Amino acid sequence: MIEDGLTPPYYAVIFTTILTNDLSGYDDMAKRMEELAKQQEGYLGIESARSQLGITVSYWRSLNAITQWKNNLLHIEARRKGREQWYKQYELRICKVEREYGFKKEQ
Amino acid sequence: MIEDGLTPPYYAVIFTTILTNDLSGYDDMAKRMEELAKQQEGYLGIESARSQLGITVSYWRSLNAITQWKNNLLHIEARRKGREQWYKQYELRICKVEREYGFKKEQ
Repeated sequence: MIEDGLTPPYYAVIFTTILTNDLSGYDDMAKRMEELAKQQEGYLGIESARSQLGITVSYWRSLNAITQWKNNLLHIEARRKGREQWYKQYELRICKVEREYGFKKEQ
Repeated sequence: MIEDGLTPPYYAVIFTTILTNDLSGYDDMAKRMEELAKQQEGYLGIESARSQLGITVSYWRSLNAITQWKNNLLHIEARRKGREQWYKQYELRICKVEREYGFKKEQ
C-alpha cells in the first residue's frame, strides 16, 4: 500500500537489503517486526517492495521515534539475527522528508 | 545494486508506484529515464525494487540537482506519459539523508 496521507516534515528510514540463501525464519520475523513497528509511538506508515533488492521505507513523526524503535529489545534481537543469517548486505538511511507530491488516477 | 559509497548529507527521491495493466512501452521508458538520470549533474545513484508496489530511490548531491532533473524536457514528457498510461497511483518524496549505516557480510 502507498502511504499517501502524510504531511512533511516527517522522517523516513530507507532500508535496502540483499538477502542470503538461508532464509528460514525470515518471513515470520519480517511480519513480526512490521506488526511491532506499527505499535510504536510516532510510527506513520511503511512501504515495501522486493525483487533482486529489497527496499522497505518506514515513516516516523520524529528522529526520537526512530531512536526509540532502534532501541526496542525485540528489534535489536531481530537485527542481530539478520546480520548473522539473512542479510548479505544492507544500507540503512535516516532521512527528513521535506516535500511530497502524489498522484491518483481518476477511476 | 545497493548504493553504499555515499556520505551524508545528500538527498533522496523516494518514488513509490502502483502500475496500471496497460504497460506497453513502460520498460523501455524506465530504462531510458534511468540512463538519462545517470548523466545528470549531481546524480549519485539509484536503487529499485518491485513487487505489488514499486519503489525507486534516486540519490542526489543537492536540491538544485533534483530540480534540474525535474525540469529536464524528456523527463517531463515521461512523467506526463506515466500519469496518462502507466501509473494508477504514485507518491514522490524529496528527503535529506542525514545519517547512514551499512553492513556487508564477510565472505
